[in-house]
Amino acid sequence: MAGNTFGEVFKVTTFGESHGPAIGVVIDGVPPNLSISETDIQFDLNRRRPGQSKITTQRKESDTVEILSGVFEGKTTGTALAMIIRNKDHRSKDYSNIKDIFRPGHADYTYFMKYGHRDYRGGGRSSGRETACRVAAGAVAKKILNQSNINIVAYTLAVGDIVAKTKDFTVIEQNIVRAPDLEASELMIKKIEEARKNLDSIGGVVEAIIHGCPAGLGDPVFDKLNARLSYALMSIGTLRGIEFGVGFEATKMLGSQHNDKFFMDGDNVKMRSNNAGGILGGISTGEDIILRVGVKPPSSIAQKQKTVSTDLKNTEIEIKGRHDPCICPRVVPVVEAMIALVLVDSLMLQKMIRE
Amino acid sequence: MAGNTFGEVFKVTTFGESHGPAIGVVIDGVPPNLSISETDIQFDLNRRRPGQSKITTQRKESDTVEILSGVFEGKTTGTALAMIIRNKDHRSKDYSNIKDIFRPGHADYTYFMKYGHRDYRGGGRSSGRETACRVAAGAVAKKILNQSNINIVAYTLAVGDIVAKTKDFTVIEQNIVRAPDLEASELMIKKIEEARKNLDSIGGVVEAIIHGCPAGLGDPVFDKLNARLSYALMSIGTLRGIEFGVGFEATKMLGSQHNDKFFMDGDNVKMRSNNAGGILGGISTGEDIILRVGVKPPSSIAQKQKTVSTDLKNTEIEIKGRHDPCICPRVVPVVEAMIALVLVDSLMLQKMIRE
Amino acid sequence: MAGNTFGEVFKVTTFGESHGPAIGVVIDGVPPNLSISETDIQFDLNRRRPGQSKITTQRKESDTVEILSGVFEGKTTGTALAMIIRNKDHRSKDYSNIKDIFRPGHADYTYFMKYGHRDYRGGGRSSGRETACRVAAGAVAKKILNQSNINIVAYTLAVGDIVAKTKDFTVIEQNIVRAPDLEASELMIKKIEEARKNLDSIGGVVEAIIHGCPAGLGDPVFDKLNARLSYALMSIGTLRGIEFGVGFEATKMLGSQHNDKFFMDGDNVKMRSNNAGGILGGISTGEDIILRVGVKPPSSIAQKQKTVSTDLKNTEIEIKGRHDPCICPRVVPVVEAMIALVLVDSLMLQKMIRE
Amino acid sequence: MAGNTFGEVFKVTTFGESHGPAIGVVIDGVPPNLSISETDIQFDLNRRRPGQSKITTQRKESDTVEILSGVFEGKTTGTALAMIIRNKDHRSKDYSNIKDIFRPGHADYTYFMKYGHRDYRGGGRSSGRETACRVAAGAVAKKILNQSNINIVAYTLAVGDIVAKTKDFTVIEQNIVRAPDLEASELMIKKIEEARKNLDSIGGVVEAIIHGCPAGLGDPVFDKLNARLSYALMSIGTLRGIEFGVGFEATKMLGSQHNDKFFMDGDNVKMRSNNAGGILGGISTGEDIILRVGVKPPSSIAQKQKTVSTDLKNTEIEIKGRHDPCICPRVVPVVEAMIALVLVDSLMLQKMIRE
Repeated sequence: MAGNTFGEVFKVTTFGESHGPAIGVVIDGVPPNLSISETDIQFDLNRRRPGQSKITTQRKESDTVEILSGVFEGKTTGTALAMIIRNKDHRSKDYSNIKDIFRPGHADYTYFMKYGHRDYRGGGRSSGRETACRVAAGAVAKKILNQSNINIVAYTLAVGDIVAKTKDFTVIEQNIVRAPDLEASELMIKKIEEARKNLDSIGGVVEAIIHGCPAGLGDPVFDKLNARLSYALMSIGTLRGIEFGVGFEATKMLGSQHNDKFFMDGDNVKMRSNNAGGILGGISTGEDIILRVGVKPPSSIAQKQKTVSTDLKNTEIEIKGRHDPCICPRVVPVVEAMIALVLVDSLMLQKMIRE
Repeated sequence: MAGNTFGEVFKVTTFGESHGPAIGVVIDGVPPNLSISETDIQFDLNRRRPGQSKITTQRKESDTVEILSGVFEGKTTGTALAMIIRNKDHRSKDYSNIKDIFRPGHADYTYFMKYGHRDYRGGGRSSGRETACRVAAGAVAKKILNQSNINIVAYTLAVGDIVAKTKDFTVIEQNIVRAPDLEASELMIKKIEEARKNLDSIGGVVEAIIHGCPAGLGDPVFDKLNARLSYALMSIGTLRGIEFGVGFEATKMLGSQHNDKFFMDGDNVKMRSNNAGGILGGISTGEDIILRVGVKPPSSIAQKQKTVSTDLKNTEIEIKGRHDPCICPRVVPVVEAMIALVLVDSLMLQKMIRE
Repeated sequence: MAGNTFGEVFKVTTFGESHGPAIGVVIDGVPPNLSISETDIQFDLNRRRPGQSKITTQRKESDTVEILSGVFEGKTTGTALAMIIRNKDHRSKDYSNIKDIFRPGHADYTYFMKYGHRDYRGGGRSSGRETACRVAAGAVAKKILNQSNINIVAYTLAVGDIVAKTKDFTVIEQNIVRAPDLEASELMIKKIEEARKNLDSIGGVVEAIIHGCPAGLGDPVFDKLNARLSYALMSIGTLRGIEFGVGFEATKMLGSQHNDKFFMDGDNVKMRSNNAGGILGGISTGEDIILRVGVKPPSSIAQKQKTVSTDLKNTEIEIKGRHDPCICPRVVPVVEAMIALVLVDSLMLQKMIRE
Repeated sequence: MAGNTFGEVFKVTTFGESHGPAIGVVIDGVPPNLSISETDIQFDLNRRRPGQSKITTQRKESDTVEILSGVFEGKTTGTALAMIIRNKDHRSKDYSNIKDIFRPGHADYTYFMKYGHRDYRGGGRSSGRETACRVAAGAVAKKILNQSNINIVAYTLAVGDIVAKTKDFTVIEQNIVRAPDLEASELMIKKIEEARKNLDSIGGVVEAIIHGCPAGLGDPVFDKLNARLSYALMSIGTLRGIEFGVGFEATKMLGSQHNDKFFMDGDNVKMRSNNAGGILGGISTGEDIILRVGVKPPSSIAQKQKTVSTDLKNTEIEIKGRHDPCICPRVVPVVEAMIALVLVDSLMLQKMIRE
């Protein structure tokens, strides 16, 4: 309702400001008897963590998670699972330069208009820092999906106009931009460093593939699987668009080209193509689910920019501090996490109506 | 949960199958004292109705709405507002050819896998016919938005590779493809008729602009306004993607290009550009909200297609009946309706926390 | 939210006014492949129907249900199941005497204060007539419970100070007051007729026993099974209180008396007593669940009563028409229905986390 | 859904086990610009705290609250407000005697049947300790209600068969049993001490009065104000029943006695009596709302009791440690808190539809 909760039955509520004492997440609806430890959670948190490479922000946060409830003797109890991450690097900063100014591209202005009061320190609640909590919850969700052999992989498909040509999933974690193409990754990194040198930032595309999703997940009408995924992913602050399967290309296709034809592969129903991206009528087909999200260039740039102040005067701003010149590498685990949340929800709901 | 309800406080539940006795919708959360009549609802229903022009399906449905509750002496009472539309053209049809076959591109297969039982007549619940109920609910929502001077306009921006060059809103309802460019509309209609002649169908792009939306709508984190809009719109069966503002173009831009700079226009905060599409940090800025959805070519085509049967054998299908060769003109009012539902929700929620 | 929906996953939305064209209900979340017909629904509707005996209101309503969606070839499809009941006896009435007056004990005044606009015909939405929709939904729920051998029985335990002494479930439907004691039922009927003769009404107690409920239903903290049942039952307009097991008697007991001691009955865990009424810590124990609700005397009485008018003047009212002198016999199926809704929800949720 | 969240728009999620590292609560939907501090919260927490008097458990917990988010510069920001309370007195305890035994009257058995896994330390999630989080959330809710001059007062009306004769609200916090009658409080305390001396416990009645609630709160049909209050209060683990106004007495009354007659008191609509307890048709009348809850004798008693073990053998148990011999004094602030949550929800929802 007030925006901090996601999910129907695997219900995730996050809280916390960028520079408050802590951020955290409560998951209500974790099935009991799931083995989970802080180490499981930490693995994905480290993939999202600031300061992990030369092309991410250098903010120092270990992002160490503490499980406060819902786990006993290494297994979930079925009751609310809460985790918090204390903010470390939040005291020293000087926010006097953004306190009274609306930064272009940020939520400063809109939060002010919505609430009449805002925590301006590092963006407060609107900071991308809240996505750490999504990643923590996503790690729990992934554990459940693993039991059903559902696997999610996301990667940077493009940075600016540099597009990955191969899709070698084994190399994704071997390059700091998380591209599935080592050669393209070199160019992407160069592009990102160039943007930073120019006190600028650059956008990109993140693609995700879900493998092993059984047919039948998702609900009719409003809660179509693609609708729920769009909801989940477009809630990541930095996205400008989402598409499934062939995506916007479909708008130029004929039905005879676009329709994925069924055929029998032995005893299994298969499709000759996967233009629909693994979802028909909002329900998974059993084929791979494929989606892409358009990532905007980060709004925090060091260049001097024209803007207005909270007392409604024209002014200029130079955003200090160290920021991400391209957020794609750090968006990858967040995209995976949000997909995981949707899939666990769908899986649990489906379990309810069909054995 | 089971997918037939949308909205947080202006809560819309739809029901009904394509060829059952009736389809309908219940809205829980309509504010009291709103003037509403069946005529208000019928106006938008007629814009979505089958058989409205030569480029839509010729199914004969008057789509006459009946209000069953929630309105007394011409005004809403604040209690649940229910409307039904009786299906007329649903008895005569012969479904023997689709009863035992999974139509390519349709939800036949996925519903079967999900439920193990499906109403195969015209797609049953997965039919686009359910969107009439969205339009009916949207008409009520628009009434509320009108009181706040919020205006939604949607139109066909492209059919295949034909793109509207002008955006003249006054001509949208003057051409049967609902394009904002009369010249382009001619080419679009030709394109659509060509597809039909070839027993084929064609995709397109629908764009929507929301004018007059105050700053401050939408919620942080998961319930960002763009996330809720994506959820709402991507639940329309025929969409493959959605983007806001400059959309996927942002992925190739630099931050210095993409950031919309604030300036004072007299006493008002304005922006030099609207690349973000009227939403920052998930909350409306007060600028126009702009979005585009990618519409796939309709799956029902008259060409012979390879597929499989429910007893898991390879077979072929020719889908009889008269279908939409391009669904864009009829998607336009549905897009408007879904946007209206999201905005009313956001408006009511905002009213709750700020006078 | 706006009050017309109940349930978490078996989600029931009702609509309709006492004297509008129809009342109805949509159930979202019905599992697929459940055999259901209008006859199944009608059975319980007839037990709630007005005019069924000399001690109920004589309003003429056949309460004939029509299923509009969600059932195909006699089985549920898993999509929204909608039912409506047309109001028959709603045109002739003259409401001029209640249009401008707030009836004592009724919701006329509070609806007016809440909405500033109300359908005054027979109470509109606040009429007990809406409970027919609960009974219709409950009939579907009972079908699901039957598959799990869960059985609900409710009956009139007391009318005024006449209390049933025996609990013979076989006689409940053999007497018009629905008491489990034929001898007491005679006295109860006499009591009710006496009240009516005096242009008055009388209260009573309805008790319900749920047999066959497995251990483990209900959720911790806020969604305890007794909390959900209290929510469900206290939403029936005519109730003043609810208690479980020994109920308010527990307030005078010692812990050593009240604690139900466990013992092994062969391989089964049983309890020596059932003071808790079948629920511990909000979760079912496997013993019978026992609850009682206090039913107020109906507010519509034919005596002249002092009250005020909508233009805020002191006045008097005589409520015409034929009303229920005691609502207990007709509350019985409503109590059963609401219990059924809660149990199906709990059962489905439990299925989700444990096979 | 999974039971740890309450509220529609003022949404409270609690987490934490009795002997885990911490318990906590997240409130999503707190209006912005509300002055709140840890001191505000601590006041009510101290009223619920263990060890506050000789008639409560002697567990040592300072119950010190830490606000983690949602408050900036002393005012709420409108984003999720999270609070945690570290458990202090949770390491030393020896649980070997309850680890393998189901305590009579406790949720040990039902949690085991529900989840197949449970945190047995002090009851884990089923411990009354979770109510501290309700009280913390309730303190925030009370702040909002105070702005609207809505006041809630609860007190111990009875302990066993000792009933308060006067209702002097000024003395409630002056006696350790929280009775509104100093004379009766002496007898109650004696009764409680006697129970403890006998290694036993005793039940009681808590009554609450809400003063200043405007007419119009609550929703029709399922979300009646009394239904929501019953839901909220019956979720407190220790209650056996709830009643409004004259409560179960209404079952023996005639309509002519029970109906509260309206009259004009100057320009205001008033009622001659308040048998309905301030709610008609589920919506507040503007009169005081009055309710009573039946509190069972605490299940933890030091007497030897027969029970069964987790390996399904008959056995005996003596529950060690210091427990509450009567929970009424500590239930009082919890009752107030839960009422506050419901009222804030209703108030915010009403604000949404009517200025």
